[in-house]
Amino acid sequence: MSDSFAKEITRRGFIARVGQSLAVANLAGTLLKGAEALEVPDPPGKKLGWAIVGLGSLAINQILPAFAKCEKSKVVALVSGHPDKANKLALRYGVNPKNIYNYQNYDTIRDNPEVDIIYIVLPNGMHAEYTVRGLQAGKHVLSEKPMANTPADCQQMVDAGRKANRKLMVAYRCRYEPYNQEAIRMARQQELGPIKVILADHGFNIGDPTQWRLNKALAGGGSLMDIGIYSLQAARYLTGEEPSEINAMMYSTPGDVRFKEVEETINFQLRFPSGVLANCTSSYGYSGQNRYRVVTAKGWFELEPATQYTGLRMYVHHDNTTEERVLPVRDHFALEMDHMSGCVMENKEPLTPGEEGLRDLTIMAGIYEAARTGKTIKL
Amino acid sequence: MSDSFAKEITRRGFIARVGQSLAVANLAGTLLKGAEALEVPDPPGKKLGWAIVGLGSLAINQILPAFAKCEKSKVVALVSGHPDKANKLALRYGVNPKNIYNYQNYDTIRDNPEVDIIYIVLPNGMHAEYTVRGLQAGKHVLSEKPMANTPADCQQMVDAGRKANRKLMVAYRCRYEPYNQEAIRMARQQELGPIKVILADHGFNIGDPTQWRLNKALAGGGSLMDIGIYSLQAARYLTGEEPSEINAMMYSTPGDVRFKEVEETINFQLRFPSGVLANCTSSYGYSGQNRYRVVTAKGWFELEPATQYTGLRMYVHHDNTTEERVLPVRDHFALEMDHMSGCVMENKEPLTPGEEGLRDLTIMAGIYEAARTGKTIKL
Repeated sequence: MSDSFAKEITRRGFIARVGQSLAVANLAGTLLKGAEALEVPDPPGKKLGWAIVGLGSLAINQILPAFAKCEKSKVVALVSGHPDKANKLALRYGVNPKNIYNYQNYDTIRDNPEVDIIYIVLPNGMHAEYTVRGLQAGKHVLSEKPMANTPADCQQMVDAGRKANRKLMVAYRCRYEPYNQEAIRMARQQELGPIKVILADHGFNIGDPTQWRLNKALAGGGSLMDIGIYSLQAARYLTGEEPSEINAMMYSTPGDVRFKEVEETINFQLRFPSGVLANCTSSYGYSGQNRYRVVTAKGWFELEPATQYTGLRMYVHHDNTTEERVLPVRDHFALEMDHMSGCVMENKEPLTPGEEGLRDLTIMAGIYEAARTGKTIKL
Repeated sequence: MSDSFAKEITRRGFIARVGQSLAVANLAGTLLKGAEALEVPDPPGKKLGWAIVGLGSLAINQILPAFAKCEKSKVVALVSGHPDKANKLALRYGVNPKNIYNYQNYDTIRDNPEVDIIYIVLPNGMHAEYTVRGLQAGKHVLSEKPMANTPADCQQMVDAGRKANRKLMVAYRCRYEPYNQEAIRMARQQELGPIKVILADHGFNIGDPTQWRLNKALAGGGSLMDIGIYSLQAARYLTGEEPSEINAMMYSTPGDVRFKEVEETINFQLRFPSGVLANCTSSYGYSGQNRYRVVTAKGWFELEPATQYTGLRMYVHHDNTTEERVLPVRDHFALEMDHMSGCVMENKEPLTPGEEGLRDLTIMAGIYEAARTGKTIKL
C-alpha cells in the first residue's frame, strides 16, 4: 500500500511486462541439479539465505525487519529497480553490495550460492514471471499473495516449481501465527461443536488512485485479490474444506477515480460440502474491517482484528459468557519465512504450497463470475 | 419461543384453520362507521383500550407487562382458547372478565366499545385471518411480525384495513426504541459519511421441535420469517431504501428433526439502488447472533445486541477509536403500542403500516426464490 512503490513500478514500465510469456519455465528442471544438497537437514543454528525481490512498503516495513526475529532465515540479497534504495537497505540489513540485483540481471542469481530462497514481493501481476525465473535459477520461492493474476499464470508457477524440484510457497502468513492457528484448532477440533456459519469481513479505504493495486494489469482485480482473499482464506482454513458453491455481488462507486479498472466492493457467499455457509465481504471503499466470526450451535469465536500484521484479538463465547483468549504475539513474517526455510532444510512440503494459492485464484475467478452472471457458481 | 404456547396451538387444531378464506374482509368497510369518533384527538391522559389476541410467551412475558409503562395504552380485553389462562391474566392485569373472548366469539368484539385496538400475537399463519376479522369488527389492528405467511395474505390484510378505514400496523418494535432510532438517524444523516456496506446477523438455536415456528403452515417458513426478518428490516430501515437485487444460500442439517418443514439457515445479499450492499444471515441452528454493523468510508457503527428486547449496545468507530454510545433504556413494546395509540388518537399513519410488513414479505419471497433457483432475483 505504498504510494512511492506504486510510482516506482509504473515509472519503470512494468505494466507492459506483465503479459510476458512464461514458457521458459520448462527449462527449469534441467538447471538446478546442483542445489539438491540444500535438502539435507542443515546443522542446528544454520540460517538459509533469502533474496527479497521488490523493495516496496511491505518489504521495507515488515519483511526486512522480520529477519531479526528469524531463527532459520537471513536476508542476503536484494532485487530492485532502485539502486539507491537497495544500497541503503543493504547497508541497514548487512547485505553484501555484490548481492544487489536489478530486474535485468535477476536471473544471474542462479550463480549465487548464498541465496537459497527468493521472496517475491512485487505487484501481483509480476509474481508469475519472477517466481518462474527464480525457480529456473534453482532457488526456492516464496510468493506474496495472491499468487498471480489468474489461475493459468499460477498453474505455470506451480508447474515450474515441480519441474525445478524446488519448493514453492504462498505467503499466507496468517496460517503461521498463533491466533489464526488457535482458531483453526478450535474449528477443526469442534471445541464449540460443528461450525454452522462463518462471517468474514475484510476491507479498507484505499488511498492514492495511482497505486498499482488499482491497476488491473498489475493487481489482477480489485479488493478481492488484495484483501477479500483473507475472508476467503479464513473460510477455507477454518473449515478445512473447499467450497462447492458461490454467490457474489459487486459494486464500485460511479465516478470514483480509484475504481476505473478494478472493483471496490465484492461480497460473496460460500457453501462447503459439510453444510457450513460463509458470508464474506471485501472492499477498498470502507473504513478498515478485519474480522471473522465462527458460529456453532453452542457458541462462537471470533478474531477482530483477525489478519492484520499485529494486534490480533480473540474472543470466545459460550454458556452466555464471552472471554478474551490471549496468545503469544509473534511476527507473522518471521514465522512464515522460518517455516519456508525449515521446509527447504528438511525437504518438507510447506503448509501453504503453490497449489494452495492456486485454489484461491480458482475460487476468486468463480466469485467474479458469480457477480458478473448473477448465478450461483458450482465448483 | 414458548413451548407451552406451541403445544396449545397445535392441540387446538389451528393448523387446519390457516388456509381459511379471507374473503369476508370485503365487508369491513361498511361495518365500522360508528368508530370514527376515535380519530378525534383524545383529552390528555386518555388511554386507548387494547385487546391481546393470543396468550403465548410473547404476550405473557413482554406485552402484558409493558402496559404498565404505557402512557396512551391500557389492556382491556384478552382473546384466548384457554379460559383458565385468560382468567388468571385478566385478574393479574385488571381486565374485566366480561372482556375475555375466545376464537369462536372473537368477532363479537365489535360490540365492545372499550376495545379500540387489537394486537394479534398469534402464530404467523393466523395473523391474516385474525387481523381481517379484527378490522371487520371495526377495530384498529397491530399485527406481530411477520405480517403473514405470504405476500398475498398480507395484501388481504392491507386491503381490509383500507376498506375498514382502520389503522393497520406491523409490530416492528425496533423502529420505536432509542438504539435503532439512533442508528437510523446516524445512517440517514450520514454522520460517518455515506453507507457502503451493512452486515446484519440474526439467529438462535431453536429448541422444541414441536413448536409452531417449525411448522410451515403456522410459521410460513423457517428462520427467515422469524429472525432473519430483523436482518432484512435493519438493512431497509438503515438505508431507507428498497433492495433491487437479492442473492441467497440456504441450508438445513440433514436429519435434524427441527428442520423437516422449514429452513434452518438462510443467508442473503441485498443490493440497494444507492449502491449499498448488505450481507445478512438468518439461522435457527446456531448460538444467538443479534447484531448489525454499518460500514462507511470514514468508520462504522454497530449494535450488538441489536434487536433483542433488552440490553442493546451501540459502538461507534471513527478516527481509530471506538466509543460506546449509551442511550435511554425503554420498553420496546410500550413504545410501539403507544405509537399505535397515538396514531389512532390523532388519525396519523403509523411509522410501520401494514404496507411495510408487506414489503418485507415480498422481499422474503424473493430471498427464498433466490436460494431455490441459484439466481440473482431482481425486484
